[in-house]
Amino acid sequence: MITATRVNGRATDQVASSDRGLMYGDGLFETITCVDARPRWLALHLQRLRRGCERLQLPFADFEALSAEIEAMARVPERSIVKLILTRGPARQRGYRPQGNETPTRILTRHEWPAGNAAADFRVGISAVRLGMNPLLAGLKHLNRLEQVMAQTAMRDAALEEVLMLSSAGQLIGGSMSNVFFAGEAGLFTPALDDCGVAGVMRQRVCEAAASAGIAVQVRAVDPGELPQVHEAFVTNVRWGVQSISALSGRTLSGRSHAQQLRRLVDAPDC
Amino acid sequence: MITATRVNGRATDQVASSDRGLMYGDGLFETITCVDARPRWLALHLQRLRRGCERLQLPFADFEALSAEIEAMARVPERSIVKLILTRGPARQRGYRPQGNETPTRILTRHEWPAGNAAADFRVGISAVRLGMNPLLAGLKHLNRLEQVMAQTAMRDAALEEVLMLSSAGQLIGGSMSNVFFAGEAGLFTPALDDCGVAGVMRQRVCEAAASAGIAVQVRAVDPGELPQVHEAFVTNVRWGVQSISALSGRTLSGRSHAQQLRRLVDAPDC
Repeated sequence: MITATRVNGRATDQVASSDRGLMYGDGLFETITCVDARPRWLALHLQRLRRGCERLQLPFADFEALSAEIEAMARVPERSIVKLILTRGPARQRGYRPQGNETPTRILTRHEWPAGNAAADFRVGISAVRLGMNPLLAGLKHLNRLEQVMAQTAMRDAALEEVLMLSSAGQLIGGSMSNVFFAGEAGLFTPALDDCGVAGVMRQRVCEAAASAGIAVQVRAVDPGELPQVHEAFVTNVRWGVQSISALSGRTLSGRSHAQQLRRLVDAPDC
Repeated sequence: MITATRVNGRATDQVASSDRGLMYGDGLFETITCVDARPRWLALHLQRLRRGCERLQLPFADFEALSAEIEAMARVPERSIVKLILTRGPARQRGYRPQGNETPTRILTRHEWPAGNAAADFRVGISAVRLGMNPLLAGLKHLNRLEQVMAQTAMRDAALEEVLMLSSAGQLIGGSMSNVFFAGEAGLFTPALDDCGVAGVMRQRVCEAAASAGIAVQVRAVDPGELPQVHEAFVTNVRWGVQSISALSGRTLSGRSHAQQLRRLVDAPDC
């Protein structure tokens, strides 16, 4: 449930229907977990947002004010989720082409922390919905998310907690709302995101935490044909943290050791 | 310039910031040209919209009321453009997954007919921005349009009227805001849209008009390597109609005969 909404600093939940975020998905978002009245990993979220603005040539600059606004919204006793949507703003004229002088729209909503997703038993399948490849958009958390919507629609009745998605070329990319790691013979490996997928904040935290613990993480192309040899796998996002997969495409995975170690490390207070 | 806006039948230009159209681009749109106070080719627009609703499992059914609403908006003396956005509506809860019981949002805006785009000299290039491939979304006019935004951003300074876009696999698909036809030895050919691209209403009208005139139209994969052999090409959308390309990647195209014939046919009053 939404407990607060602010649009461009005002307490409203209305936006202009001519906003390019609505017309074209021309914008970015961040889903920020807030604990003890503070947003977690805010610097990493804003870093990704900044990369997205550069890539989309979205002329937003006031990251300091935005940061303060997110912190203010997080200032509630119970843990919460603050979602930021940053669009290119209302269209200056018809058509896809930005004029370059748009005024971005920022939308902040605070949500109750959702119930559910018990950590014990996380069943993960492979989605039949694939991800189109575009290196210019890969890694960004942009607003063009129909593929994820379709993947989640298709899994609605499948008694799964998450699905992994392949690129149109058949390579494994990640979960519909998470990144994925596998334990191999020499440490961990996780899909490269050069062609599609979202470079998650928790993915980055896991890579940093693994490095600090001396665990190698290979970022590389992952073929779905490798999955039958895997005995430990986990999905990550800022809400789930490091979430072990108990069954992958119906096959039980027994490994938990990397996930347990990393879960402690990513939650370390100095991060 | 926008001269009227209605959201769900009310005279407002505000939508909820929790609309899935804004959050995920979870919706569809149509750009409808209106002449003599009537929308043109409305049946074809609504046919495509209906296909899109089915593909996205977007539970909108009231096409009759929508049709009447579009007709009412078109009832102005000067020609105009009516844009329809149909989204899955406000989110029922967090996350990509639709609940299935959303109430779609329909946004209608009427725009002045834009100046510009003289028919005489239409220079067209090839965009470096490619289109991700997804058969589930191909053909639809959905709201995930960042690739088109990026292509139009890149051509801003290039003194071109349109750019053609390739799929990630390197096949020619169409213009950033149009479809494309080429004249070959045995009639016309136009790219198949099985993997990406928008199946335009004017593209359909051109195919029908060509059939009625006994001109063969092959819908097939088109390799950009074929372009140097082409001597006539045209782009189509409902606003431009059939628009001859005078220069393609800097090479002058002299052919005009198919475009001239088809222009008369698609405008025939019985269509």
